[in-house]
Amino acid sequence: MTRSNTDHHVVVIGAGFGGLQTVRGLKGSGARITLIDQRNHHLFQPLLYQVATTILATSEIAWPIRSLFRDRQDVTTLLARVDGVDTAAQLVRLGAGSIVSYDTLVIATGARHAYFGHDAWEAVAPGLKTLEDATTIRRRLLLAFERAEREPDAEARRALLTFGVIGAGPTGVELAGIIAELAKRTLWPEFRNIDTREARILLIEAGPRVLAAFPEELSAYAARALEQSGVELLLGTPVSDCAPDGLTIGETFIPCRTAVWAAGVAASPASTWLGVEGDRAGRVPVKPDLSVAGHPEIFVIGDTASVKASDGTLVPGIAPAAKQQGTYVARTIRNRLFGRPPSGPFRYRHQGNLATIGKNAAVVHMGRLKLRGRLAWWVWGVAHIFFLIGTRSRTAVAWSWLWTYLTGQHSARLITQGTAGQNESNPTA
Amino acid sequence: MTRSNTDHHVVVIGAGFGGLQTVRGLKGSGARITLIDQRNHHLFQPLLYQVATTILATSEIAWPIRSLFRDRQDVTTLLARVDGVDTAAQLVRLGAGSIVSYDTLVIATGARHAYFGHDAWEAVAPGLKTLEDATTIRRRLLLAFERAEREPDAEARRALLTFGVIGAGPTGVELAGIIAELAKRTLWPEFRNIDTREARILLIEAGPRVLAAFPEELSAYAARALEQSGVELLLGTPVSDCAPDGLTIGETFIPCRTAVWAAGVAASPASTWLGVEGDRAGRVPVKPDLSVAGHPEIFVIGDTASVKASDGTLVPGIAPAAKQQGTYVARTIRNRLFGRPPSGPFRYRHQGNLATIGKNAAVVHMGRLKLRGRLAWWVWGVAHIFFLIGTRSRTAVAWSWLWTYLTGQHSARLITQGTAGQNESNPTA
Repeated sequence: MTRSNTDHHVVVIGAGFGGLQTVRGLKGSGARITLIDQRNHHLFQPLLYQVATTILATSEIAWPIRSLFRDRQDVTTLLARVDGVDTAAQLVRLGAGSIVSYDTLVIATGARHAYFGHDAWEAVAPGLKTLEDATTIRRRLLLAFERAEREPDAEARRALLTFGVIGAGPTGVELAGIIAELAKRTLWPEFRNIDTREARILLIEAGPRVLAAFPEELSAYAARALEQSGVELLLGTPVSDCAPDGLTIGETFIPCRTAVWAAGVAASPASTWLGVEGDRAGRVPVKPDLSVAGHPEIFVIGDTASVKASDGTLVPGIAPAAKQQGTYVARTIRNRLFGRPPSGPFRYRHQGNLATIGKNAAVVHMGRLKLRGRLAWWVWGVAHIFFLIGTRSRTAVAWSWLWTYLTGQHSARLITQGTAGQNESNPTA
Repeated sequence: MTRSNTDHHVVVIGAGFGGLQTVRGLKGSGARITLIDQRNHHLFQPLLYQVATTILATSEIAWPIRSLFRDRQDVTTLLARVDGVDTAAQLVRLGAGSIVSYDTLVIATGARHAYFGHDAWEAVAPGLKTLEDATTIRRRLLLAFERAEREPDAEARRALLTFGVIGAGPTGVELAGIIAELAKRTLWPEFRNIDTREARILLIEAGPRVLAAFPEELSAYAARALEQSGVELLLGTPVSDCAPDGLTIGETFIPCRTAVWAAGVAASPASTWLGVEGDRAGRVPVKPDLSVAGHPEIFVIGDTASVKASDGTLVPGIAPAAKQQGTYVARTIRNRLFGRPPSGPFRYRHQGNLATIGKNAAVVHMGRLKLRGRLAWWVWGVAHIFFLIGTRSRTAVAWSWLWTYLTGQHSARLITQGTAGQNESNPTA
């Protein structure tokens, strides 16, 4: 090498699971690293639905990015929004004319929810990707009960007490399960004019079963557990319209004032930045080493990348996949910096699928292991505590869960960013 | 009595310390009670500054009002904004034409910050009364450091790293103390382009000393402790202008991009509702039994009322005073309901003043007891844990404090409701 590694500047865009893992993997590589995110916090998205459903506080699942690397003098953290990438000049364009040049670029910018061409649905049925999404959904859920308590008209009350969750993957199942617990177990002693146990919680799925990524027997168990907890399953028919007064499922209109979208995601605009054609969900196709064709110095990982597993299927958009890709890319960069040969193509190792339905009910599928019920629920809980960052969050989340488990009370039932007099039809309120 | 107590309807507006205490005191009275608040949560305002300064999570100091009275079938909680009161018809007007009639009305609607006729200052220097105020201030504090890290111009960087706290009562002192800790101790290892220890934290007070409600020796101790922790005291000169690029103190302009208002409050619009003339701060004058002249069925308590103590001074706008008034009014209503004689005028018992400055530094003044330093700090902490509602909050706050005490790390350093690309000059963003 004619220059030292400290002359090599790695820019990582996005501090999700993939981006953090890349930066971690570059420890001691000698490269200078700049980590850019438009948020000041890393978010533990797998538990975001618990913020939306009043169990966890926002700060229990989010950590200031720069504090995670306070001891890494090689890492500079920037809070900035990326406007684009100049791949010829090797520059990242930030807002207000500011630029950052790179020798190696890692794009790990994740995904947003997608509405399959019906962007107007977002105002009615928000998705769940950021802390603000979660507090918006939390506010709408709680306000629906509050308004029902004051609503004299029986039909309007019924619509206020109908909750639609669209999409029955893990997020949809988990949301529907907790909303049912909230209505049927937690809230009912607190209202005087309504019986919250009469609330309808609809879980709507275009496909034939819930948790389609799981084996059929676990899907069937999850469906039974959901129904036992009071969730109505509407399977096999897609949502054809989302309006403020209700959802249309196929041809059927159901009055419903609160809806949540858990049905689809689209990748961030990385393909636009790079001038390459994304796949149907906007993901950037990458080579077997996760670099972009014609640009060995640019890697795309996580939900933003379209990566084929060895069996030809797409690597799923889940945290363990993003982390494995981050580790792999960091190793590839180190190999190059130290003049070592490359270590072969990226291979995805699927560790398993987990989803929780409600108290003492979950499904776990890891290789030949299939668990359901109470044991699966504990495995799910312990695994998620383990994956949180740091003792502080682990203890806080463990204590929040223990409290909810023992008392049935949720500790973050706050309506914020909007008061009684404000118009909630504005989704950005 | 010609009718049973259950025919008697007590409406309480406001679920702060005074309102909650009134409802608690009416337990078993037989009266029907309706508790109205425009928020769904009771807020422990004495610790709100710790949310603004990233130590506590929003949900650790706020509780859903209706959950506090889940076991009280005599209490109905309404999330609603009050538009006015018709004292002749004995009606409370809510939004959208909805009304609630009362036999007895208790107004406990608190106060907002006041800018002495300079309403434009609010956009520059927000006050601290609601959870949204706290998360706004938290966002601005954290964004100032983030922007300084990216700012190439030394002078602009200096303005970004200058923080002005206006008003040196307990809230101002507490805010300045923690902002100094954040800059001088917590954040500096995390930034690469700036040294956060160079931040200026200005505590600006028109009067001659900090903590004017305390004995002079405790004020002097607090001033020394603040200066030791890195706070600059600007005493004896009022703020003459608050602008986005800086504060003017007397004739001196100080470039400063982040300011917080802790200098004055004004009562809620209760005097307008009642058609009576408020005092200078908008407080409603009340009779010795806390009722409104000409309306024995209407009581006004807490920060909304102007109440004289036995020594002729005004009862201070602090939580213990509001609670004592709530207890008193509940007893008065019970006496009437049960046909007992009234129990004499309200008498305020001052229990003491407490304020904290930073780690191991606080002042306590209770009767002849004057404490400062480490012991005072522990007394302050234990007292505040004790006054929180419920085991859940007490354990959560105790753990948050213990963590901060042991590690120096703050666990709620979140920038929410606004990302890197958004314009922060809009205070409602």
